[in-house]
Amino acid sequence: MKTLKNEFEEYLQSTLQKDIPSKTREAMNYSLMNGGKRVRPMILFALLQDAGVDPHSGFSCAGAIEMIHTYSLIHDDLPCMDDDDLRRGHPTCHKAFSEAIAVLAGDALLTKAFEIVLESDASDLQKVKLVKSLSECAGINGMILGQDLDMQTENHPLTSFDELKRIEIYKTGMLLSLPMRCACVLSQQEEHIEAWSQIGILLGIQFQIQDDILDKTQTSEVLGKSTSDEKNDKATAISLLGLQKASKIVLDLEQKIKDQLNQIPGDHDCFQQILNYLIQRKY
Amino acid sequence: MKTLKNEFEEYLQSTLQKDIPSKTREAMNYSLMNGGKRVRPMILFALLQDAGVDPHSGFSCAGAIEMIHTYSLIHDDLPCMDDDDLRRGHPTCHKAFSEAIAVLAGDALLTKAFEIVLESDASDLQKVKLVKSLSECAGINGMILGQDLDMQTENHPLTSFDELKRIEIYKTGMLLSLPMRCACVLSQQEEHIEAWSQIGILLGIQFQIQDDILDKTQTSEVLGKSTSDEKNDKATAISLLGLQKASKIVLDLEQKIKDQLNQIPGDHDCFQQILNYLIQRKY
Repeated sequence: MKTLKNEFEEYLQSTLQKDIPSKTREAMNYSLMNGGKRVRPMILFALLQDAGVDPHSGFSCAGAIEMIHTYSLIHDDLPCMDDDDLRRGHPTCHKAFSEAIAVLAGDALLTKAFEIVLESDASDLQKVKLVKSLSECAGINGMILGQDLDMQTENHPLTSFDELKRIEIYKTGMLLSLPMRCACVLSQQEEHIEAWSQIGILLGIQFQIQDDILDKTQTSEVLGKSTSDEKNDKATAISLLGLQKASKIVLDLEQKIKDQLNQIPGDHDCFQQILNYLIQRKY
Repeated sequence: MKTLKNEFEEYLQSTLQKDIPSKTREAMNYSLMNGGKRVRPMILFALLQDAGVDPHSGFSCAGAIEMIHTYSLIHDDLPCMDDDDLRRGHPTCHKAFSEAIAVLAGDALLTKAFEIVLESDASDLQKVKLVKSLSECAGINGMILGQDLDMQTENHPLTSFDELKRIEIYKTGMLLSLPMRCACVLSQQEEHIEAWSQIGILLGIQFQIQDDILDKTQTSEVLGKSTSDEKNDKATAISLLGLQKASKIVLDLEQKIKDQLNQIPGDHDCFQQILNYLIQRKY
């Protein structure tokens, strides 16, 4: 998996090299190659490997998902959104370049995601399904709805964990269900697409609460980012439930994910490894 | 064509109605249904009609192009970009809502463009080609490159019309070539796709210089927008060439478009009508 990650980094870098040089391309490259954990790509590769499909066939899809993830971070960090200066230990895109270039770099990464997903060896029907999944999970009924709901909390603070969970389902869950959806399309195992999507969404909620816990218990140096939610006075699982209850919910979610996984036939060894890595992460 | 435009307005409105309600969806609707001239859709429909294909088959494609056009205006109007308050006689998206919602509404319209282009009755292969055209013309080697180059002129003012033309090819031309590209794919006349693209790009340059001339000779009330290029001290065809030479170039471009058109076999009656309307427009 380590080799695969390195190969994927090279692939990702190469996707921008044919483009006409510009400040915006520099900014895209800066944010895309900024040392991300590549969680979503690794999930996609693991699922393909478990299905007996060469993970390399998922590179363009994983690249598209990573571009969408990166664009969402760039726009989320803007002064008019979360106003963050630090991302993965480096200045955020608008700090390193300018606000205008950060807007364009985000736009361009989102657009390019739809370009490179077509580069895979998949059939035309599969490509159509992949584009559909990307646009649905990333759009106004997916990730963007989550960001919208999240923003409304600035004027109407959350009062319950259920409200927060609804936001996380869209904001983090939908994008984490994308590698699952894409893997099912690529490996032609679409009969399990809903079950896998559910795992992605549960993992998204788990991931976000764990982030809140790490924000509270780790320094921003270890995390490589500022803890903007606290700065912005936003409700988190911890502020709503307390550290102990939040940690309990993380464990419950892990169990739910494992239960759901057991209901899907076949071996899930590679995915299990990624899952364990994610559950045990410290940053 | 009038009936067709009304039908298209209804279709466009309907594309957002199934989405989950949110502030961002309101903002998308506000900007998308803001009385645009629908130039690109009408070009697409005219080309289909000339090719003997039912223009209704181009609705989803035209909707996608119009969403991309609208998203680019929303982001272009942002304070960190052109900082415009007025668009088509109404407050710009970030003025009517907020900067954050305007960023998200633009993102969501771009994403949705790729969702609705799949809704057409086209074959999977055609859909793949349409997605490819949309992403290439709108992306980092197309419209976004044009916006990037345009922004660089704030620090490095343009000194020649050729430099301005290069920007317009990308910023306006690529998006105006999209309805042509899509019509060629939908009517299965791809042997003429490059010739038609060229017409779109010439039309884009012509369109932009004509805009500059109208900005200079019409009031902002007639235009329904503020004349931000002048406000932002940006070079225009007029500031570089003077009104007389700029008007001469518009006429030259019109001739070039007609010459190019004559080289494409078949009847172009409907497109000719649109072309005449565009050339004679006063706002």
